[in-house]
This record gives sequence, C-alpha cells and structure tokens, in this order.
Amino acid sequence: MEYSTKETSEKYSNITSLWRANSSSSSVIDAEFLHCSNPRSELDTLVPVNTSQVSCFIGGCVGPQNSLKENDKIEKLSGQPEGVDFKQYSGYVTVDPIAGRALFYYFVESPQGSASKPLVLWLNGGPGCSSLGGGAFGELGPFRVNKDGTLHSNQFSWISEANIIFLESPAGVGFSYTNTSSDYNFSGDSTTARDSYTFLVNWLERFPEYKASDFYLTGESYAGHYVPQLAQLILMHNNHPKKTIISTINLKGLAIGNAYVDFESNMKGTTEYYWSHALISDELYNKIISTCNFSTPSSASKKCNAYLDQIDEEIGNIFLYNIYAPLCNNRSLSSTSISEVDPCLPSYIQSYLNVPEVQKAMHANVTNLPYPWESCNSTLNLSWKDRPLTVLPLLHQLMKSGLRIWLYSGDMDAVVPVTDTRYAIKKLKLPVKTAWYPWYLQGEVLTKNSAYASVQVGGYVEEYENLTLLTIRGAGHFVPTYQPNRALAFFSHFLSGKLLPKE
Amino acid sequence: MEYSTKETSEKYSNITSLWRANSSSSSVIDAEFLHCSNPRSELDTLVPVNTSQVSCFIGGCVGPQNSLKENDKIEKLSGQPEGVDFKQYSGYVTVDPIAGRALFYYFVESPQGSASKPLVLWLNGGPGCSSLGGGAFGELGPFRVNKDGTLHSNQFSWISEANIIFLESPAGVGFSYTNTSSDYNFSGDSTTARDSYTFLVNWLERFPEYKASDFYLTGESYAGHYVPQLAQLILMHNNHPKKTIISTINLKGLAIGNAYVDFESNMKGTTEYYWSHALISDELYNKIISTCNFSTPSSASKKCNAYLDQIDEEIGNIFLYNIYAPLCNNRSLSSTSISEVDPCLPSYIQSYLNVPEVQKAMHANVTNLPYPWESCNSTLNLSWKDRPLTVLPLLHQLMKSGLRIWLYSGDMDAVVPVTDTRYAIKKLKLPVKTAWYPWYLQGEVLTKNSAYASVQVGGYVEEYENLTLLTIRGAGHFVPTYQPNRALAFFSHFLSGKLLPKE
Repeated sequence: MEYSTKETSEKYSNITSLWRANSSSSSVIDAEFLHCSNPRSELDTLVPVNTSQVSCFIGGCVGPQNSLKENDKIEKLSGQPEGVDFKQYSGYVTVDPIAGRALFYYFVESPQGSASKPLVLWLNGGPGCSSLGGGAFGELGPFRVNKDGTLHSNQFSWISEANIIFLESPAGVGFSYTNTSSDYNFSGDSTTARDSYTFLVNWLERFPEYKASDFYLTGESYAGHYVPQLAQLILMHNNHPKKTIISTINLKGLAIGNAYVDFESNMKGTTEYYWSHALISDELYNKIISTCNFSTPSSASKKCNAYLDQIDEEIGNIFLYNIYAPLCNNRSLSSTSISEVDPCLPSYIQSYLNVPEVQKAMHANVTNLPYPWESCNSTLNLSWKDRPLTVLPLLHQLMKSGLRIWLYSGDMDAVVPVTDTRYAIKKLKLPVKTAWYPWYLQGEVLTKNSAYASVQVGGYVEEYENLTLLTIRGAGHFVPTYQPNRALAFFSHFLSGKLLPKE
Repeated sequence: MEYSTKETSEKYSNITSLWRANSSSSSVIDAEFLHCSNPRSELDTLVPVNTSQVSCFIGGCVGPQNSLKENDKIEKLSGQPEGVDFKQYSGYVTVDPIAGRALFYYFVESPQGSASKPLVLWLNGGPGCSSLGGGAFGELGPFRVNKDGTLHSNQFSWISEANIIFLESPAGVGFSYTNTSSDYNFSGDSTTARDSYTFLVNWLERFPEYKASDFYLTGESYAGHYVPQLAQLILMHNNHPKKTIISTINLKGLAIGNAYVDFESNMKGTTEYYWSHALISDELYNKIISTCNFSTPSSASKKCNAYLDQIDEEIGNIFLYNIYAPLCNNRSLSSTSISEVDPCLPSYIQSYLNVPEVQKAMHANVTNLPYPWESCNSTLNLSWKDRPLTVLPLLHQLMKSGLRIWLYSGDMDAVVPVTDTRYAIKKLKLPVKTAWYPWYLQGEVLTKNSAYASVQVGGYVEEYENLTLLTIRGAGHFVPTYQPNRALAFFSHFLSGKLLPKE
C-alpha cells in the first residue's frame, strides 16, 4: 500500500483486490506460530544453541557483526548537497545465513547529540514496498531526490529528533533478497515480523551503542500490520522466561500513519470517503452500502463484487494516495512555475537508486540482483501468504502493555483514509481521555511575492485511553511528503510523549 | 456566504447561525408577492404607467438610459497591466428613483467577438456580499489584485467566453446604496430579486446591443437563492400577458456554484462533511446526528443548539471556504516561495476598492458613502427579511421550463459543501441521464524546476433529467480562485451546453 501511480495502486491496494485476497486467517497473528511453526528455516530446530559464530534464540539467530558497522558507513551519497553534518550507514543484515536471506537498511544518525536521542525503525508497507523509496528518499529522510539525479536537503527531516533506520522488509523488497527463492512462497505477515525482529537484534549487535536507547517503531499503511506484530514479538522476547542470548529492546512506543489495521473498517472507511469526497456517484454508493457485507471477504457476493469493480471507473485516473494531487503524467514540457511537491518524485527515486554509483556508495545490490530496484514488488504483494483481517485485538493487547501508541492520518488519502482509522478506533470502544481539538503550528503561508510565518491548524488530536489519534491537515498517504513541517511537529511530540499544542 | 476570514464567516454562514435565523417562510418564494405586496416602493402603485421619463411595469420602472453607457466607460483601472484588449464599464443603475436606490455594476466585454457572445450576470451571495469583491476581482474577472495595489491579468478569466456583468446586490452591498435607509428594513430575497430584475431591464436599455443576446444567470453560495428567484421573475415577465413595455430577456440557463438551496440538506451535508473530512470528533458527530432534527429551524432543541455551538471550537481557526488553505494571518514577513493562491487576496481587494482614484475610475461611490467599501455587509446579513428554507420546489419548477441548470461544486468547501449539494439533488429524485464520470482537462503539473502539461481529472459530472451536477476537484467555495483552469473549462462547456470531456 505504497507509492505508485494509479495503475500500481490498483495492484496493491484497491479495495476490490483486498476484498478478494484469500486471507489465511481472520484472527490476530499468533506469536508462537511466528516463531516455531514456520517451516521456512531449519534454524528453528536449533533453539537454543550457541556456536562460536552464531547464537540462536527462539525463531532466529544473531550472527557476528564485528567491523560490519564501519563497512556500512556511507562516505558520500552521489549528488548530495554540501554541508552534511550527520553520519549515514547502509548495508545488509543477514537474517538467515543458511537460506542466504538478507535485509537492506539505511541508517541516519541525528546531526546533534545522537547518543542521547532515541532510535527509530521506519517501515513502509505494501506489503512489498520499500522504506528507501518511501520513507528515506520520499518522505522523512534527510534528502529528497531531484529530477537531475542530485539530492537536496529536507529541512524537516525527522533525523533532527531521532536516529532512524529505514528497513526494506521482507526479502524481495527493494535491495533485500534471499538466495533461496522458495522463501518467497512463505512471504507474509508472520515471516516478515520474524525476519524484522532478527534484523533488529543483529543490527543492535552491529551498533551496540544503541542497545540501551529508547526505541520506537514507526511506519505507514500496511505497516499497520508490521508495526504491532513486530512490537508483539519484541515484547515477547523481552519477557521470555528462557531468554538468555539477546538483550532487552527498550521499546517505548509505536506511531503508524494511515494505518491499515482492519479490513472491515477499511472497506467502510474508503466507501464513505469516496462518497463524501465526491469521487463516486450516489447510485454506486447506495448500491455498495446496501449490498456488501464487509465483515469478512468470504461473505462478498457476486453482486457486491460487480459494484466494487465500478469504483475505479467512476473515480478515474487520480492519485488515490492524495486525491487532490496531480499525476506525474507528462506530455510536454515548459518551465514556469514552482510548487512544493513534484508528483514525479517516485520516478526520480527509482532512477537514483538504480545508478551503479549510488548502489556502490550504499553497499547495496552486492549480489547483482537480476532485476532493478523498485519501489514496490507487486509479485510479493500478490502472493502474500498471511494477511489477518484485523490487528485490532493485537493493538488492544499492546495498549495494555503501556506502550505509547499513536495513529496519525493525512486527511487527503483515499487508500487508507482517515475515515478508515476513525471506524477502526470506534471498534475499540475506548474511553476519551482528551477531547478532540485542533492543534496549531507556526507555518508558512506562501504568497506570490512573499511568505508569511503564521500560526495554522496543523490537524486534530483526540487522545483515548492508551491510544492517540492525530490528523495532519492537507496531507496525503505519504504524510511527510506533503506536509513536512506538520509531520515533523507530530513526530517530535510523539517522541516526547506530549500532545500537540492547542494554540 | 462569501469571502471572509473565520471570524466573518461565523457571522455569515456557519450552520449555527443559519439554524437560528428566523426564517419568515418555509415555502418557495411567491413571485406575485415579490411584485405587488411589498410596501417598500410607491412605484408599485403606478402599474402600468408611462411618462416621458419613466416607464413602469409590474414591480419596477425603466428610466431613461441615454448616454449613460458612455459615461460608464472605464478608461483605465488604476494599476492595470499593459495590453488590455477589452472594454470595461461600471457605474450605477437606479432601481428606485423615489427612494434613491441604485445598484452598482462592473461590466466587462469579451475581448474578441463580444457581439456574438452571450451575456452573463454574476451574483455573489452572502446575503450581503459583493460581486466585485468576489467574482470580479477575486475569482473570474479579467484582473486579480496584487499586494501592492496593482492588478495582474487572469489568463483564465471567464470573459474569454462571455460578456459579464458583476452586480452588487441588493442595496447596501459594496457600492450599491439607497438614500432611504428604511429600505434596509425590507432587505431580503424578495426585494433583492425585484431590484435585480429592475436593474437588468434598465441595464439592457443602457446597453441595448445586448437585448437579443443569449443570457445566463450565474453566481455562487447564497446565489443559490438569488439566481432561481431572479430566473423565475424573468420568465414571469417574459410570459406576462399584459407585458407591453419591457423586452423579453433571452434567458437560456443558470449555473450556481456551491449553491445554498436547501436548509436541511445544508445542515446534513455540512455535518457529514465535517466528520468525513476529520474536522470534528466522532462524539460530537454522533450527538448531532442523534439529537438534531434538521427539517425546520423551529424544531431545533436546546440540546441540539448546544452541540452545534461546539462545532466551531472543535474545528478551530481554519478557512471554512477552503478547508486546506492557509489563513491570511501574518505575523512576520520573509520573502522566499511562490504559490498560486494568496490567502490575503481579500484584503488586497478591500484596499484597492477603497482607493479614491480607483473609485473615480470606476464611477463608484458618487454619493460619498459614510462607510468604506466592504466585501460583505454583515448588518444586512443579520437583518435579512426573508430567507425561504428551500428553493428546491422553485428549482424543480424552473427545470420544467427548459432552462439549462447546472450546479457546480468545489470539493474543498465546508460552508456549502459538495455533500450538501448531493443531499439537495437527492431530494429532487431525478432520473439519471448520464451516469457519473470523471471529466478530464489538460492542465499544468507544477514541479520544482518545471511545469508539465498533463491531462488530469478536473472533477466529476452527473447529468440528471434537466439538471447537471459538476464538481471541480481541488477547489474551495470560490471555485475560479482555486482552480481557474478547471473553472473556465466548466464555464465554457456550460455555455455551449456540452458535457465535459470523458477523456
């Protein structure tokens, strides 16, 4: 559920395809199943085993990481601007040495006082989409890619507040790979959570100075599945009675943007959003509402499916991730005006990450993958093994653990729209702790000849018992892309555990 | 229901105030009542009378207009750009010589082939707002006002398609005035329709070359009342058996943007819009839906009113006429970026129209009004005499007359939102003639270093029997301000009676 034009977005995430996806389970992910029952890796049988090279724990192993950190250091990214005052690393972390499965990450340290700042993992969704193509180079990372293949600084990068790992997960996404192609037959929520956890404990061996840091999981879209599932795994390992090998991960909280957490809420929420945002007709809306039963995919009727098929036709060719943005659909070129968001950014990123010099500088693609880097892997998406219908019970369980949990939402997104998130939270039946209010931020008002600094509504907040809903006004699915200033304000307040300002 | 910052918008049009307005009638406006029963003007008793100076008809009089056209010619507007290739006129038309009531207009001829192009009257709403402050200088006229008090050309002005009269109506709005202050006690829908009609027949005497032109009524917001009421009056006079003095007006159609036509639909539509656009909480939304009965204002309960009062607080300080636009709320000044719409435009217009040199060039304020020109007259709005709860039956009646009727809607407006228009049309129970589809337009995609010409979805169309709904994607209440290109495409297709392109 990530970056793409309309065509790709259809492959990934339109509600028709989700509806028809054969979901293997309608319940919350079973954590034990994650660790012990998946036949993918022989290493599971080694629990708990120690050798001189590899220490294994329930579900994975920690390999030797000596000197790998220095190897991962990025000297300079191709086309980066002058005056870079932070450290960057990237490379592979093996998550299964027998299968030859390795996940690619890009890590950026905060320019000032990185040692005392929290560690944050960022995950893009899909399933099948890259955190390099989304988060790092398109949203909250230190650089954005220009049309000419150079980079410019993102003054609202989240690295001012935290040290951030962008992980391409699972294998098959972006530069992440496996040498055992049958692995892909098992790609799904369970294996993704396990590999991401294995990545994390290995990465912390490589960067041991961050072992004690406050740690946060963040992401967007289908990371609505990834983040809580990974959080559950971390808590389970932290609290495991037989735990001996791996350190406790100091997980403090989760923040997920335009989070896909509940099938029924998404179906209801998108339908409602389409109608209220004038994307579909009264007639089709009424047909869907009166015909479709969104409680499970299996209850979809033929008639309902036929109506769902009409949605695309009625909406036409718009970028569903930001319904008001233009498409990157160039015919002829002139050179006149300036706007903030270039709708062709994803294609610049795709070009950039396929430049051999860039890959070399990033220690990426060391195995000479037989395919180019792509923002999203549609094959992986379509063959996804397990996709629970809801993670709401899991979220509910995590809420009781004392984690800080924020769901944020850009209000111009029609893929996992704010109405979806509202319906999902409604299902949780949570008591309100701080009533809904508009939050304010000093922001720029751009005019033809000047820019005013001005206080504007950045969005809205409602704090529930153990969960906070926060909207970002005027942002699409990729929140920091469209509203970098507001997104950074949200992130900074999330990390500090303070609600956003009322005035 | 026009231009204003949040504070003024509250005065004009927030749903709480509308709810509480004492509406004198819940039925459609009675056309006969309009003409004969209103005690405002003694001229009503003169029907039908001819003198050498004044010819009267049912409800008004035609005064001598000789040589007034040339007097109204604008030589040059202060600060206008070079190369103006069209004629402009402005001045007063007396609508009641005894009371001394005169309406101000600004008329712009189409640069090429004006004689063969239609004549269009544009009306802003409020009630109490100026068509100079809105339509002419802020939306669809040939010029927009710069911060420094100069003008720049609007390349998407509607004058490329038609000769356009911008009318400040009724007396008390903008430069329009009366010398009989008690007239203001009767300001309302009925008197506005009558005076606008009287204006029109007098104006056509002044510009007789347009008497046979195809004529269209356009406007926005509360012009949802004005336009159909004026249309009804025109048709009634055209068809009046005793008609002797005035010519037939060649009325062909109506187009109204974000039209306020039905109280109940507006209440339902705004509530729904607020929720689905994440401006208010689930809690407040549910309270309003379960408590309020929107069928008549008198059925409002105390409890409902209390909930409605909370709306403003929950929404906070945003520009309700375009929920994603920044406020003009400057604190400090820098000079960096460029965007298309300057949120401070209304204040530039206000300054411009109060410059004595500008007023002189426009033949405005000839009586030295004791107050400055303002975009909206809030006193007039608050003392509005008659405000029927619905004009849907009137619209229905007009639909049968063969007029072309288009309702268009900018989808970012929360004051008369697209959901309001959808609910209103639903009430009409019309058969669908052309099913909902996205319409496409060659438009600009602006990027950091260049602009691509590209085909984008401009909005959506649904054609019903005798009525067309058209949305303009990414536009607020003042549609041509925010999406000038898309708005012009709509206008041009409306005039030609062709639906917008499917591809």
